[in-house]
Amino acid sequence: MKALVYNGPGQKDWVEKEKPGIDKPTDVIVRITKTTICGTDLHILKGDVPAVTPGRTLGHEGVGVVEEVGPAVRNFKPGDPVLISCVTSCGACPNCKRQLYAHCSDGGWILGHLIDGTQAEYVRIPHGDNSLYPIPDGADEEALVMLSDIMPTGLEIGVQYGKVKPGDTIAIIGAGPVGMSVLLTAQFYSPGKIVMIDMDPARLELAKQFGATDTLQVGEVDVVEEIMKMTDDLGVDVAIEAVGVPATFDICQKIVSAGGAIANVGVHGKPVELHIEELWIKNINISMGLVNTNTTPMLLKTLNSGKVNPGRLVTHRFKLEEILDAYEVFGNAAREKAMKVILNA
Amino acid sequence: MKALVYNGPGQKDWVEKEKPGIDKPTDVIVRITKTTICGTDLHILKGDVPAVTPGRTLGHEGVGVVEEVGPAVRNFKPGDPVLISCVTSCGACPNCKRQLYAHCSDGGWILGHLIDGTQAEYVRIPHGDNSLYPIPDGADEEALVMLSDIMPTGLEIGVQYGKVKPGDTIAIIGAGPVGMSVLLTAQFYSPGKIVMIDMDPARLELAKQFGATDTLQVGEVDVVEEIMKMTDDLGVDVAIEAVGVPATFDICQKIVSAGGAIANVGVHGKPVELHIEELWIKNINISMGLVNTNTTPMLLKTLNSGKVNPGRLVTHRFKLEEILDAYEVFGNAAREKAMKVILNA
Repeated sequence: MKALVYNGPGQKDWVEKEKPGIDKPTDVIVRITKTTICGTDLHILKGDVPAVTPGRTLGHEGVGVVEEVGPAVRNFKPGDPVLISCVTSCGACPNCKRQLYAHCSDGGWILGHLIDGTQAEYVRIPHGDNSLYPIPDGADEEALVMLSDIMPTGLEIGVQYGKVKPGDTIAIIGAGPVGMSVLLTAQFYSPGKIVMIDMDPARLELAKQFGATDTLQVGEVDVVEEIMKMTDDLGVDVAIEAVGVPATFDICQKIVSAGGAIANVGVHGKPVELHIEELWIKNINISMGLVNTNTTPMLLKTLNSGKVNPGRLVTHRFKLEEILDAYEVFGNAAREKAMKVILNA
Repeated sequence: MKALVYNGPGQKDWVEKEKPGIDKPTDVIVRITKTTICGTDLHILKGDVPAVTPGRTLGHEGVGVVEEVGPAVRNFKPGDPVLISCVTSCGACPNCKRQLYAHCSDGGWILGHLIDGTQAEYVRIPHGDNSLYPIPDGADEEALVMLSDIMPTGLEIGVQYGKVKPGDTIAIIGAGPVGMSVLLTAQFYSPGKIVMIDMDPARLELAKQFGATDTLQVGEVDVVEEIMKMTDDLGVDVAIEAVGVPATFDICQKIVSAGGAIANVGVHGKPVELHIEELWIKNINISMGLVNTNTTPMLLKTLNSGKVNPGRLVTHRFKLEEILDAYEVFGNAAREKAMKVILNA
């Protein structure tokens, strides 16, 4: 089969590779029909994730059709269409039993990281019964690919950890795919005002179409000053960081109100200076984490009922064998006005 | 009347001062019977809290007897014995209505800070109906003084914000009066292991008497290494910071488990380096804040029912007019083996 492999920092290749087979009784082999590229894949390619070793197939998002199941698999059979979760979980360890699937002792985020991923014609999914979801009849497969990672990440780590409530004023810093997923899923909980903050006017325009009530362009206005004006100097109820650099975390510290929350969704590579000398007295909460995908069933229901349409995040489509072109476009997202790219196998 | 006043950095005096009178219809004048000194008073005396101006009577803890009430006061009459809350709250503003009394728009921590406090023969309590509690019959008044500030602070900001659960392994860094209050109130929620961490072996010994299952002496052992040994390298469920310096916050970052919480109780004067590059993936929560005293009614019930005895925190007793001696002892707490001092009027 063909697969996109990481071959050390800056090196990726579309190569012929052995088709995966059943390794453990709980494994499921999935034939990929649609996959995508994540910002995390770009980080890996820069060499920022040293646990990824040369030869590893990248990708942790996708939908497909079950090709083969191990003897212990109960919920799936060959021919079943499935959604692949970016988090693999055994369902039985102490962390799984408290829905902390991200820290499953025999899983977590391993796809396209510690084991071969979804940017290939076939992928082996360990603990298939817990790590795959049956696809609802007639569902939009492009939209479903957004449920592998970015939609549950936005909902769980941004909206739910930040405890967005009806009427709240929230700010989302970063209008990339995950920030947009926060924007879409925050609306489940009816915040009163959603302020989207980014450097890119095109992304801010898209955010307005997706439900942002206000937008602020970094570099054009003083974001902190504008937020304070909007909120009678109180600050926002929830500040959601969806970039992963010290400057954006710092904005969150400056705009959070007393009794409010900072929900960090961004993946950081450096420490940040926490102004606890000012914040200790403000009764604020700071959360962060890797998606558990515990909301995947809920998201499937919202998708099915038409409450949300994450397919709107897809801006570009390629054939799977054109994946190197797709990386070129996704890697220059601002120039290409790209949000999510879909690869069709 | 006599009062202990702050007269600029390093300067305090026991002086004759005008007895306070009713200023607003919701005011209550209380004759102090017992008060105490808080670590915060020492900070003020160092000049660390510039909002406190010379001439200000210090103190925000105490019990007393109602001397006079304003015409709008409904719950109290002269002669009623009362507990004074360190937080004054109107009960009617948006923050009060969500129990964020610490950020009451006409109150918060103002006693001995922005208005005259309790280290005096009489004190004026604004919004008396919301800021005073009737004292239960036969209650231990020394124990009640601990309910003005340190016990609700330990319970709300340490235990409840940290979400201590039955069976949890928790670590408390700092065995001062507030750390000890965390220790006493954490036991309401039946944690499995309570590890107390401090530099002072005498305080650690006291912590054992108060229910710590384990103690670690900073400077004698590598605290992080010991915690990891105790927890099979997982870390603690809840790490509670009760000191307020970067080094102790840093211990918390290093010992918190995936899915765990850092509850910051300490008052900080400097920023801390938050290792978000390591913590973002661990699904941890960081909380902090000023006590709301929303748990005061609950604490009164636990005191009444004998579930907790905060009177054990009292190590020294003085007459109110000996308050300068009391400051001398409390300001040298380690040497004097002092925890809380009681001043009897």
